Amino acid sequence: MTGCDEAGGDGSGMVWWGWGAPGRHTPLPEGVRSLLEQGLGVTRHDTPPVDPAELRLPVAQLTGDARDALIGAVGSAWVRDDATSRVRHCRGRSTVDLLRLRAGDALDAPDAVVLPADHDEVLAVLRVCAAHRVAVVPFGGGTSVVGGLAPVRGGLAGVIALDVARMNLLLGVDAESQIATCEPGLRGPALEAALAIHGFTLGHLPQSWEYATVGGFAATRSSGQASAGYGRFDSVVVGVRIATPAGSWELGHAPASAAGPDLRQLVLGSEGAFGVITQVRLRVRPVPEKKIHEGWRLADFTGATALLRAMAQRDLLPTVMRLSDEVETAAGLATARPGSDAGTGGCLLITGYEGRAGWVDARRAEVAGLLRAAGAVALGEDAGAQWAHGRFDGPYLRDALLDVGMFAETLETAGFWSALSGLHTGVRDALTAALAAEGTPGLVMGHISHVYPTGASLYFTVVCGQVDDSVARWRRVKAAASRVITEAGATITHHHAVGTDHRPWLAAEIGDIGVAVLRAVKNTLDPVGILNPGVLLP
Amino acid sequence: MTGCDEAGGDGSGMVWWGWGAPGRHTPLPEGVRSLLEQGLGVTRHDTPPVDPAELRLPVAQLTGDARDALIGAVGSAWVRDDATSRVRHCRGRSTVDLLRLRAGDALDAPDAVVLPADHDEVLAVLRVCAAHRVAVVPFGGGTSVVGGLAPVRGGLAGVIALDVARMNLLLGVDAESQIATCEPGLRGPALEAALAIHGFTLGHLPQSWEYATVGGFAATRSSGQASAGYGRFDSVVVGVRIATPAGSWELGHAPASAAGPDLRQLVLGSEGAFGVITQVRLRVRPVPEKKIHEGWRLADFTGATALLRAMAQRDLLPTVMRLSDEVETAAGLATARPGSDAGTGGCLLITGYEGRAGWVDARRAEVAGLLRAAGAVALGEDAGAQWAHGRFDGPYLRDALLDVGMFAETLETAGFWSALSGLHTGVRDALTAALAAEGTPGLVMGHISHVYPTGASLYFTVVCGQVDDSVARWRRVKAAASRVITEAGATITHHHAVGTDHRPWLAAEIGDIGVAVLRAVKNTLDPVGILNPGVLLP
Repeated sequence: MTGCDEAGGDGSGMVWWGWGAPGRHTPLPEGVRSLLEQGLGVTRHDTPPVDPAELRLPVAQLTGDARDALIGAVGSAWVRDDATSRVRHCRGRSTVDLLRLRAGDALDAPDAVVLPADHDEVLAVLRVCAAHRVAVVPFGGGTSVVGGLAPVRGGLAGVIALDVARMNLLLGVDAESQIATCEPGLRGPALEAALAIHGFTLGHLPQSWEYATVGGFAATRSSGQASAGYGRFDSVVVGVRIATPAGSWELGHAPASAAGPDLRQLVLGSEGAFGVITQVRLRVRPVPEKKIHEGWRLADFTGATALLRAMAQRDLLPTVMRLSDEVETAAGLATARPGSDAGTGGCLLITGYEGRAGWVDARRAEVAGLLRAAGAVALGEDAGAQWAHGRFDGPYLRDALLDVGMFAETLETAGFWSALSGLHTGVRDALTAALAAEGTPGLVMGHISHVYPTGASLYFTVVCGQVDDSVARWRRVKAAASRVITEAGATITHHHAVGTDHRPWLAAEIGDIGVAVLRAVKNTLDPVGILNPGVLLP
Repeated sequence: MTGCDEAGGDGSGMVWWGWGAPGRHTPLPEGVRSLLEQGLGVTRHDTPPVDPAELRLPVAQLTGDARDALIGAVGSAWVRDDATSRVRHCRGRSTVDLLRLRAGDALDAPDAVVLPADHDEVLAVLRVCAAHRVAVVPFGGGTSVVGGLAPVRGGLAGVIALDVARMNLLLGVDAESQIATCEPGLRGPALEAALAIHGFTLGHLPQSWEYATVGGFAATRSSGQASAGYGRFDSVVVGVRIATPAGSWELGHAPASAAGPDLRQLVLGSEGAFGVITQVRLRVRPVPEKKIHEGWRLADFTGATALLRAMAQRDLLPTVMRLSDEVETAAGLATARPGSDAGTGGCLLITGYEGRAGWVDARRAEVAGLLRAAGAVALGEDAGAQWAHGRFDGPYLRDALLDVGMFAETLETAGFWSALSGLHTGVRDALTAALAAEGTPGLVMGHISHVYPTGASLYFTVVCGQVDDSVARWRRVKAAASRVITEAGATITHHHAVGTDHRPWLAAEIGDIGVAVLRAVKNTLDPVGILNPGVLLP
């Protein structure tokens, strides 16, 4: 196999064994390495990915007839079954996904990668796949961290990845209505660059922003680092068009409607199981006149959480608000400067303001007043800039950790304010105890990244040593956390979707009736069951 | 038949022939009467409702077995088939509904009215009705204006109204999360009174507020006069519980979630066709420290609309914002004072501010600055207070018009800003032309009552003379307007739901696939098809 190390072309454009383009990778900083070795007692040992030649791919199953029909639908240049293309579309980018790839296991690779040019070609591909009983995995940026791209072949005759990379245009901007019409393959940076020409921004910045696509944001109900100000992705979708085996479906005629249930909200979060999103219309905003990020240190997580709640309930939020708990703050991997003037201890809060200059200044002053009154210590714009500079670095750091025998993974939830403190300690303790029970004590860090009037999200990062079967170990550890989340009545995922990883917990959240409703919708749109089989639906 | 004129007890609590309690009715003001007679050339003639004894009710079809089983489910006191109860639950409160009742036609009355005490009794009633193939019309305030309570008996063995009047408690308030848990039969005033004890408000004030219920707000995706500030009803629903023939379904574990599609949005707007809403959890807010309403006069509707757009797109909205077009302003039925200092002409804008005193003052000053810069003339707080005082008076005025041979009805839509001006003139002209073609020229007034960053709602009021068959005439006139709305790509209803009146236009809005999806959901939840048959789904 060749070419896997080169970025570009179709697929994620990332290195096959990790996150992002090769040029961005650096070894683990020595300081972090010592910190983790001393803190966790993990012996350093190199755990590089296998040689690409050792990658185990499944034998391609697609029949000649099916392959010919796909070529008829999109042209021969856009049906690819070389090893490089297949590996590039093998699973997503969870730590489990990467560990399996790094160990040479590419057994979930699709039989072929198909790249339609437009909505009609997507429809044609779906027709071919329904006729030939071939599973279709819609593929945007390939950044799923919940197993959303792992097909269950079941009784089907093969699997293709339907890559929307060629559908990557900003189709138009209705400046008066502040609505942008986008193709699904547009990635975060390209979308912002195209919008900027018109004087607009979307402001949707999840950590996956460099690679994730508009279609993926929609399919997973994504949320970004600045969603306090710009809104969750589902809240900025004005309209959506999807191609399904049952035909085309277009929704969204007004900013709001009472014409029955809001069916857009059924497409958002459908994770490729109902259809392929081929167009998204989005509310955009003028490019902000001013952007400021700053850092604060608060005494403790419980008190700081109450402060965030007060701000959300007074409709007094910054554009960005991110509060690390004591452990994440002490670890200081991403943002805090060891030995800074502000001292250590407590909790780091990042606040960001983006918008009209007058609004930024006024909101910043009002929030700062509340923070100071609560005893927060200002860390200044440097701390904010440092966070903003490193806001997309997490996944690169993970690769460096994986290289030296460490394991790093995240999970997230959200709950109502009155349950949040118990949810935080419950999940943290469950993760800590489960890791200890496995004989691999780890660092369990938490933060709040999204706040609402009625509650907030909680995001956990776990770092520990790798073991012989880190994948199975993580499944057990995550199950322990998921049980706590479900028993607390919180959501199993705030912004990462269900995929296959959260599937066992979905019925507890939406009820058996909810599952039956989703299945009825799927049967209507995808009667043969070719779309992302095994994803979303239990 | 006796008792129909007395308010209270089950059912809407309104006079059978019109809106609201009897004490609130007054004859049409002489000034308005002359204005309309002169403007429209309608000869005054009294058109009172028939004597209650003349009301034509259908013969009750419920079998003894079904009736006994219903009594077994809820107790004999709560299964009512007297004429008064049946008439009280006959249709909703559209003008067409009232004209038919006033003429003695109560032929859509249910065979019986059933009043369950709680969720479990609702489930029991649904089981009985499924077993006996009896249609169930969920009934809250009885205020539908779109035919949402008009059952299609089809092949079913009878129809009951399932009145949630006994389920009318505020069950609890989570003050920390600012979430109130409500039973569905809570009406607007009772809900606000109960919340006020806890220091909270919902702030949801549609014109039907005095009679409409929480369950109805949810089932119809209601929107209120202060939704610019408090949010549409669908945006404040945190969780919902429904009873369906397939069992109980409860949704809502977090302020936001990525655990698949947001199924709450499938229940909101389901109009009783999927299940009976038995509990709603709502985001509430602290009772505002300060409330101010004021009036402004702007030169023209097009310019004023652009100003509203700018305010919405700068996130600079008042809590209430309502802009009348030139005709509605000139008619001045509700708010403007003939001969006021501000002179006449132009467009009346009502702005309202509710919240913390500091916010009210700051927002009011900022909005006033924008308005003054655009040449708006301040009409002061008197004009605002006058509007607020009369904000629920419309339906009473309609009764007075119906008494003297006039016809008054409304319809509404919403669209994106770039299409809004064309939508306004298109619908206005279609209504005007259709009325003229019927030989009954009328007054066609419009206003914007809800604005969003991407667009706004448009609400039209039509006043003309009654004719021999005003019901059929209105169906033709409304169809002309609906065609324009649909062809413009706007929504057929912004906040009144689909019911039976908008059913012919639903497929144009959500597509044949959307209709198939709704039908699949209905078949899953209500396999026998007993729930509000003929409503919502074409």
